[in-house]
Amino acid sequence: MTAFSLTKHPEMVLAPGAAKAAGDHVTAVAGPKARVLMVVDPVMIQMGHAGTVQSSVAGAGHAVKLFSDLQSDPKEASVDAATKEAFEMGATCIVGLGGGSALDTSKVVAALAHTGEGCGPYALAASQLPFRKTAMIAMPTTAGTGSETTGTSIISAPDGTKNWFWGPPLKPDMALMDPELTVGLPAYWTFYTGLDALVHAMESRTNRYRNAANDPLAERGIVEAITHLENAVNQPDNIEARAGMMAAAAYAGLAIGNTGCAVAHNIGHALGSLAGVPHGRAVSVSLVHTLDWAIEGNRTAFERVCELIGVKSPEGIGERLQEIAQACGQRLVLDADEKAKFTAEALAAAMVEDANISMLEATARDASPDDVQRLAQAVVSAA
Amino acid sequence: MTAFSLTKHPEMVLAPGAAKAAGDHVTAVAGPKARVLMVVDPVMIQMGHAGTVQSSVAGAGHAVKLFSDLQSDPKEASVDAATKEAFEMGATCIVGLGGGSALDTSKVVAALAHTGEGCGPYALAASQLPFRKTAMIAMPTTAGTGSETTGTSIISAPDGTKNWFWGPPLKPDMALMDPELTVGLPAYWTFYTGLDALVHAMESRTNRYRNAANDPLAERGIVEAITHLENAVNQPDNIEARAGMMAAAAYAGLAIGNTGCAVAHNIGHALGSLAGVPHGRAVSVSLVHTLDWAIEGNRTAFERVCELIGVKSPEGIGERLQEIAQACGQRLVLDADEKAKFTAEALAAAMVEDANISMLEATARDASPDDVQRLAQAVVSAA
Repeated sequence: MTAFSLTKHPEMVLAPGAAKAAGDHVTAVAGPKARVLMVVDPVMIQMGHAGTVQSSVAGAGHAVKLFSDLQSDPKEASVDAATKEAFEMGATCIVGLGGGSALDTSKVVAALAHTGEGCGPYALAASQLPFRKTAMIAMPTTAGTGSETTGTSIISAPDGTKNWFWGPPLKPDMALMDPELTVGLPAYWTFYTGLDALVHAMESRTNRYRNAANDPLAERGIVEAITHLENAVNQPDNIEARAGMMAAAAYAGLAIGNTGCAVAHNIGHALGSLAGVPHGRAVSVSLVHTLDWAIEGNRTAFERVCELIGVKSPEGIGERLQEIAQACGQRLVLDADEKAKFTAEALAAAMVEDANISMLEATARDASPDDVQRLAQAVVSAA
Repeated sequence: MTAFSLTKHPEMVLAPGAAKAAGDHVTAVAGPKARVLMVVDPVMIQMGHAGTVQSSVAGAGHAVKLFSDLQSDPKEASVDAATKEAFEMGATCIVGLGGGSALDTSKVVAALAHTGEGCGPYALAASQLPFRKTAMIAMPTTAGTGSETTGTSIISAPDGTKNWFWGPPLKPDMALMDPELTVGLPAYWTFYTGLDALVHAMESRTNRYRNAANDPLAERGIVEAITHLENAVNQPDNIEARAGMMAAAAYAGLAIGNTGCAVAHNIGHALGSLAGVPHGRAVSVSLVHTLDWAIEGNRTAFERVCELIGVKSPEGIGERLQEIAQACGQRLVLDADEKAKFTAEALAAAMVEDANISMLEATARDASPDDVQRLAQAVVSAA
């Protein structure tokens, strides 16, 4: 490790009940008497979690407002409305509360809150986001995307295009993780968001940009996820399992922040666009059915993954994931409805689109045009 | 690891020649056309390193000024003068360049640059430092203190008292580490600053606050230091060894930021006050002669340290460090001049002073008044 480079880590606090102490964490990060805009998934209001956090923040002497006009695929208009509100109240701290969509939104809001400007010019880093001057705390309510530790957001333009935003200003100051907030997440979403974290960590540990400084972060993500996923799904009140999955997601987020992902995310994003396959499901199905090909790019790295998850050879990784899926009442293959929406040719074409190809290129194996066709076919035909 | 807490990590960039790219890193962290105040150890001006960094920063289109009115034990007056300069130029980025003293100064300057206020009220966290609104890049020129990754500074009050400052605003945005900047460091300082890093990492791995989330950081610090210290001292141009020691210092800094240190730092700080023993020398001498006692507090943790440094039992750790010292032309005992300046009784009294006792209490073993006397005696009488 003569040379290395690692992106910033937020302060990370993971503890059951942490949401009830949110106010103290705001004080520690932003100072006393902060002016706080909470950017909240509306479901968290219904579940009462927004109220818990708001009470704690107000109780610690901060002024607090809620913004909850959010969609599941966050739109620029929504980000801009929240940014305007933050600017007008002179917010000194943004608290994001929700899944990836709410956190992605809140991170961009925090970066722009001191100017109040619209986010459009910053899509795809066309302009560099300004140095953030507003404190930012991310409170995830799923354990998967890792948005609480990454420096990226995905925000949809007015024409519907999903654009990446990235840069150091999008790294939160703190990832405040209360596993109790994920207890109500349905089994289906617990499973597939959890697999998203596992796939992040596996791709980060094995792709072209894997490196010794980042490997421990990816490995922690793999171990936490493989240890806790099944219990988190099948014992929804198991706080230890929920906490383990939150740690998995946070470490996997740090890891992909350093290395990016690989072919499973390349195909997964394409499946999302073509057939609306939920992200965690799309990337895990893609991982399982492209593993045999990807392994040839870096067998040593995949052998390390085997050690971590307790299987004998890289070819057994997919089987292990299918076993976990079966124990969770799922199968990692596309179903007939999903397959009906596109052809293998269309999938292959989507894999090499500008928006997706960098993920394919991050895989530790060059993909020829023939490979792309075969990989698309493998995912589509798996039954 | 059901619950854990880790402080923020700066972005970490370690590469030979990185100083020549400082301007690009300023752009990435602070944005284009930044207004940069470099807070620089005057020795770095003589050695030409300040000029290298300044040229790179100016060449990348930033406005840049130098502040170099620094002492080796930084004073509040010096911090305040630099803060005033930063405020008056409307600095948007502070770059610290030097050893622990320069970095400690630059971190406090960055936290207060947007208000221009004096640092006095923030000593010992009597007031909470405000949320930092100015970008901060720390460029170490020694490999030891780890100030580039910690959230602490030590600044002397007008009456000479060395006060701790701490808080998230003191964590840099980036630790920019160029091992070439340490090549000119004399062997004596390379050895003892390097041991400071090793002691940080060992105490963090074994003290009362050690924890599974932090252990990998401490362990990385131990392994890098034990691998590279002797070569960095005896082959001063060995860039791989210099880089390894920079990594050791940075990881050890992250580790003590999470756990604090222990008895070796308790006695080491006392030796600094009583007899002016250089810090790295003071803490390493103290470690070696208190190990047998400390080991009893957490043998399992010390056994892990043994695995990492390749010795059979915890009792062999001190011997291993003496072997490295011998290979570097040093011995980890106080010399006659140092011993002449104080008694074991005075040392024992200093160990339980308010300024030092928390480090003693962090050790994974309670120290009775008798223990304190015996530990002081052990350090003083070792020959």
